[in-house]
Amino acid sequence: MIAIDWGTSSLRAYRLDGQGQVLEQRSVAVGLLACRGRFDAVLAEQLQDWDDPLVLMAGMIGSRNGWREVPYVRCPAGIDEIAAGIVELPAGGLEGRHLFIAPGLAQLPDAATPEVMRGEEVQVLGLADELPADGLHTLCLPGTHSKWVQLQGGRILSLRSAMTGELFALLRQHSLLGALMGAEARASHDSPAFERGVQASAAPGGLSHHLFGVRTLGLFDRLAPDEAPSYLSGLLIGHELRGLVPAGCGCVHLIGEDQLVRSYAHALALLQTPCRAYGQALSARGLFRLARHNRGLAAAAGGRDPDL
Amino acid sequence: MIAIDWGTSSLRAYRLDGQGQVLEQRSVAVGLLACRGRFDAVLAEQLQDWDDPLVLMAGMIGSRNGWREVPYVRCPAGIDEIAAGIVELPAGGLEGRHLFIAPGLAQLPDAATPEVMRGEEVQVLGLADELPADGLHTLCLPGTHSKWVQLQGGRILSLRSAMTGELFALLRQHSLLGALMGAEARASHDSPAFERGVQASAAPGGLSHHLFGVRTLGLFDRLAPDEAPSYLSGLLIGHELRGLVPAGCGCVHLIGEDQLVRSYAHALALLQTPCRAYGQALSARGLFRLARHNRGLAAAAGGRDPDL
Repeated sequence: MIAIDWGTSSLRAYRLDGQGQVLEQRSVAVGLLACRGRFDAVLAEQLQDWDDPLVLMAGMIGSRNGWREVPYVRCPAGIDEIAAGIVELPAGGLEGRHLFIAPGLAQLPDAATPEVMRGEEVQVLGLADELPADGLHTLCLPGTHSKWVQLQGGRILSLRSAMTGELFALLRQHSLLGALMGAEARASHDSPAFERGVQASAAPGGLSHHLFGVRTLGLFDRLAPDEAPSYLSGLLIGHELRGLVPAGCGCVHLIGEDQLVRSYAHALALLQTPCRAYGQALSARGLFRLARHNRGLAAAAGGRDPDL
Repeated sequence: MIAIDWGTSSLRAYRLDGQGQVLEQRSVAVGLLACRGRFDAVLAEQLQDWDDPLVLMAGMIGSRNGWREVPYVRCPAGIDEIAAGIVELPAGGLEGRHLFIAPGLAQLPDAATPEVMRGEEVQVLGLADELPADGLHTLCLPGTHSKWVQLQGGRILSLRSAMTGELFALLRQHSLLGALMGAEARASHDSPAFERGVQASAAPGGLSHHLFGVRTLGLFDRLAPDEAPSYLSGLLIGHELRGLVPAGCGCVHLIGEDQLVRSYAHALALLQTPCRAYGQALSARGLFRLARHNRGLAAAAGGRDPDL
């Protein structure tokens, strides 16, 4: 089968064997925004030399602005509920393929603020059955919008999001702080500056106050322009962790892109919180598990792959 | 004399009589950035029908990117130290004028993050001698970068800044949240949505987490596009207040632009913190007081105005 994580800015595709092992993988920068609605043509091009008929996708491709809006599954949810929410698409321009999209998750308390995710849940499912069934596990998936998940017995109990990655990009590109960093100061990681940012996030006063410190530290030559991005990153990640690491949390399971996961692991170490890191290929494993739990998919795969 | 508050985006000029009463005032959108270094020509044009020779300026005009960098006065400081830091400029293209620029204030602790302000200190001085000399007073000057001041016996003991106004503009103009608000949703104040934002800022999780709520509330039709800017404003101001209103604070003295001061007053009321509001004309009063405390200015004024 083919497992696809298709988000706003990129498409990652995995070709899997009958045991879910990754045979081949590719990542291209044709996210939703770049497709202009021609999802079938883009997908056909990406898959032209892979002849597996079964294609299961997850991510923003199932959102209102994606190929087809797949209703959110309500949280708490485990693999059964999520697999039951998978929707089959007409093959359209992709003859001989069976196309499916997995749903995202939504948490909809009556009084409090809703939460959503699309795509991260398959990474979570890729890890869920490897964690002890009886404990409460905390997962963090850093990104443009970080996701925090509480997992127990393989089920996703709750979600929380943080706009940390988007805030960093906004401040870097459009704010007074970004202007002070200069066009030259690329975000090469400066470890001491990052640590100073994480430590600064512990001071009283709040994020909006702390951000101004990026300016004043620069003004008095206490922070060089090429250190400022790492300091800012430490400040923002430090605030996210202080806000979202649950009290009494054991180990935080970090899933995501290498550099970002390293930054979060570094900040967690400064907060004396243990963590373990995993790569984004968990998507493939989660999608493989989902495919095995959905009847339509299993039937579609039936003729060709007895393992599914 | 003529008192001028000249900032990054605007110039406010006041013509004062010998008792510091405002005879005339004007406000124009020729801030530093719009001047392209031609400060004397811009000023000459603004003052052409006011013939008072004495001109005292404050604000970013005294910064590194202004007409001339006037060194910061170290905090704690009162009117004597600030008046002593005033610098006279060559009149240049403004013959017959005596031009002075007031310094800003800097707080430079060895270990903690520095703080600065330029321009707000004259508003503080405009109010300082009207407050009881023996208490500790908290002043808040909302703006692109809000300033919080602790005042005692007419002296500024400490400063703190918050980038709340800039964050609002960034999120409104460049973020995913701004895109959801739509181009049409202007920032007309929606009082219930603003209150919801202030209340939401009290929840656990931190600002980066709460900001994502603007998106999800919209996604599930719990917040209309034209309510979102007020909700966002309430969220950001709520965070600023929860971070910066000192514990046990009595009354917060708010100085600034009307609409913004009303928003802060509204949020403070929700936090059960009393406040009192003042307009920006305090600048004129503060500059008048400063002029009387500086020998060079008093001498320059001597021939024409026996009161100075």
